[in-house]
Amino acid sequence: MYVILVYDINEKRVQKVLKICRKFLHWVQNSVFEGEITEAKLFKLKQQLNHVIDPEEDSVVIYTFLTEKYSRREILGKNKAVTDVII
Amino acid sequence: MYVILVYDINEKRVQKVLKICRKFLHWVQNSVFEGEITEAKLFKLKQQLNHVIDPEEDSVVIYTFLTEKYSRREILGKNKAVTDVII
Repeated sequence: MYVILVYDINEKRVQKVLKICRKFLHWVQNSVFEGEITEAKLFKLKQQLNHVIDPEEDSVVIYTFLTEKYSRREILGKNKAVTDVII
Repeated sequence: MYVILVYDINEKRVQKVLKICRKFLHWVQNSVFEGEITEAKLFKLKQQLNHVIDPEEDSVVIYTFLTEKYSRREILGKNKAVTDVII
């Protein structure tokens, strides 16, 4: 299945979250990851994130799509995934 | 159709982008909007954004889904859309 993951994390923890997400998904732009992932790996990703984030302060939204068939992806402006180094 | 919009905008322009997005979609968390939208309104949204962003520096990624049928949305941690005031 296909996943889009966006996060809004306190600066103290954002590097850890970035490292975890990079193991499972592709960096798209600041605080946004996406990619194909199995249910088992998604479970692992969520487990690792839950160990790091502060549920009172941090937020991770995961959109899961069983198929990309009905979806479209457009970029206005710069495609940061191609040009920028992941910060 | 359903849209998820994420942006990575220079601070000088981010307030303008936020205002435009709020006219068409729901704020989810920092730099993330989503919601139902018609093709005509999406066209208008993109037009207005293209007038504001610097294509050399700013990035807006728009995921469009013809149906929400095959999708799922999960939140780890805080649901900022409910609790936080839009910044």
